[in-house]
Amino acid sequence: MAKSPPTEKPHSTPCFGSLLSVSNLERLVEKLEWFVDQPSVTREEKALADNLQSRLAKWDQFKIHRWRDGLVAVPKDKQPAFLMAGHLDTVPPSSAQTRKRENGRVYGCGTSDMKAGLAVMLEVLENFPDAPVGYIFYDREEGPIVENGLKPLLESIDLPKAPTIVLEPTNGEIQVGCVGSFHLDVVFQGKRAHAARPWQGENALYLAAPLLTYLSQREPDEIVVHGQTFRQVITPTILTTHTLANAVPGEVTINLNVRFAPGSSHEELIEEVKREAGPKAEVILKDLAPSGAVCSDDPTLAPWIEAEGLVVAPKQAWTDVAQLTAMGFPAVNFGPGEPAQAHQPDEWCPEEGLLFCYEKVLKLLKSGK
Amino acid sequence: MAKSPPTEKPHSTPCFGSLLSVSNLERLVEKLEWFVDQPSVTREEKALADNLQSRLAKWDQFKIHRWRDGLVAVPKDKQPAFLMAGHLDTVPPSSAQTRKRENGRVYGCGTSDMKAGLAVMLEVLENFPDAPVGYIFYDREEGPIVENGLKPLLESIDLPKAPTIVLEPTNGEIQVGCVGSFHLDVVFQGKRAHAARPWQGENALYLAAPLLTYLSQREPDEIVVHGQTFRQVITPTILTTHTLANAVPGEVTINLNVRFAPGSSHEELIEEVKREAGPKAEVILKDLAPSGAVCSDDPTLAPWIEAEGLVVAPKQAWTDVAQLTAMGFPAVNFGPGEPAQAHQPDEWCPEEGLLFCYEKVLKLLKSGK
Repeated sequence: MAKSPPTEKPHSTPCFGSLLSVSNLERLVEKLEWFVDQPSVTREEKALADNLQSRLAKWDQFKIHRWRDGLVAVPKDKQPAFLMAGHLDTVPPSSAQTRKRENGRVYGCGTSDMKAGLAVMLEVLENFPDAPVGYIFYDREEGPIVENGLKPLLESIDLPKAPTIVLEPTNGEIQVGCVGSFHLDVVFQGKRAHAARPWQGENALYLAAPLLTYLSQREPDEIVVHGQTFRQVITPTILTTHTLANAVPGEVTINLNVRFAPGSSHEELIEEVKREAGPKAEVILKDLAPSGAVCSDDPTLAPWIEAEGLVVAPKQAWTDVAQLTAMGFPAVNFGPGEPAQAHQPDEWCPEEGLLFCYEKVLKLLKSGK
Repeated sequence: MAKSPPTEKPHSTPCFGSLLSVSNLERLVEKLEWFVDQPSVTREEKALADNLQSRLAKWDQFKIHRWRDGLVAVPKDKQPAFLMAGHLDTVPPSSAQTRKRENGRVYGCGTSDMKAGLAVMLEVLENFPDAPVGYIFYDREEGPIVENGLKPLLESIDLPKAPTIVLEPTNGEIQVGCVGSFHLDVVFQGKRAHAARPWQGENALYLAAPLLTYLSQREPDEIVVHGQTFRQVITPTILTTHTLANAVPGEVTINLNVRFAPGSSHEELIEEVKREAGPKAEVILKDLAPSGAVCSDDPTLAPWIEAEGLVVAPKQAWTDVAQLTAMGFPAVNFGPGEPAQAHQPDEWCPEEGLLFCYEKVLKLLKSGK
């Protein structure tokens, strides 16, 4: 259920003492809960986008732009010094998943990935509506790349190519670049038969087993880019047997999710899969999301990263840093969520992550003044 | 689409010359087409059962009994010397499957398994309505054993325990006994994770791969019963990953279809699966259909089998010979279909099988006179 937006006025002078940190944290958690209480599984972000749009419309300082269920809020009268970006959608919740707050964590679907990031964005926006910051909330990040709302949203508006913080879960690290991602269908053709006489057919699961065995023993490729190590991995995620309980499956499809490093060729990984799947398997490239460039040397971001002593690490996940850097926005990932919690059935976000990320973003805000 | 039943009167004196064989064949094919043109996937047999019931009701000689979508037709004024039995349902058709007649074959869903058998039954019934033969048409054979309509149909009527021919596909052989059948779910628990960082989870497909490899190399157990060799086999049929394209599957379920010989213990096969799946896998017995006794020495059937020189072989499939022999009906499989065609996407039945089976049944009819 959506709560009404809070009505408190923004603080005019932020302060980082511990009492104010407590009140900052409470407001951040309140905003995170506001997002979590509005389910927004991919393609079902409309209600959340509508409510968020109404909430943003209360601030005269912003021009609000919408495309499908994505929103951009930019200052009406100034150029943004930097942008913050986050996706509104989540993967589907698990059956027993509910929102709760316990032992310094907020539990719920999408807390780490990435409604905690959205909460930080909303808190900065509502607390500092006069700051030179632009906000990008977009839809359908967790689905197929062809439906991702970021690129069409940005192409439908004229936005300066300012440095951009993507608030995907990074556990408070600056995570640079991002691995590219693609999906392959590997199709094994056997011969269907009655399960009482399996020797009259050819079980496609048996044709698929050697590839599974190979992948189970495969170590990640470690690729170093600008001093950061990215890992290339091949993961079987969905296996489909297309058959009945009493028939030898005549066809098996394995969906592989493959990640590749910035600057590396995805084609070598496809060749590896083809080699290990064998000449009789069909390997189909279903989609491809590019890798993201490493932008930690951006002139706005680099001094802030150094002054705050932020840990810089490679982003071992696909994020829209890929699309942003391809479109000319120098972008890095920096968010409050815990990466290992993304897509977990009992996903949580650490409260301290919310506060840390928020306070560091305020430093960037100050550094530009 | 259902055709209207043919209106020709039954022949009073059958003759086995080649010209009459041609006309017998045409009538058999016509009846097979009548059945094939009325789709009857398991649980959807009602329309076919309704039309068949109307067709049988035209013959005064029979008492017609119905239970759900199963029908029994028994002579009103005489004890049956033998019974013929067949199931009305089929597995779901494949997408491109249509009925056609080509090169001595009739193609279509359920032709071999076992509408060709139903066609022989209907031809005997309509051609020899005064013969001492009873007919059992029943529903839901291809689904779970708990829904199988044969036992409740027979329990709802008082039928003498006459020898019974089950017209499952046997390619004109007498196939005795039948293997028992059961399904196991083998559940592997890993740990779900984001597919970009698979090392943070445990891929349940990798836990399942060794069992698939073992089964791919396993030879059937050969078990000899009354001189007939039955093969015990374990076949993985459905594998379910329960996950998204971008997540490491945290749980995998493999459905195993297992066949065991008459008189053999199914429990040893469960122990084998448990041993090979490993101690962390959960093995769940989902259903169990018993094996069928070997009845080729029945005093009515044995002389006929010998006189006609019929080939006797073990039935390497589950058929309702299991339930019939358990209920006290001495039963064997003898049908016109081709066993290897059962459940094939382009299933066919040989025309010569129809004629052979029909003519041999007429010999049994004569032998009892």
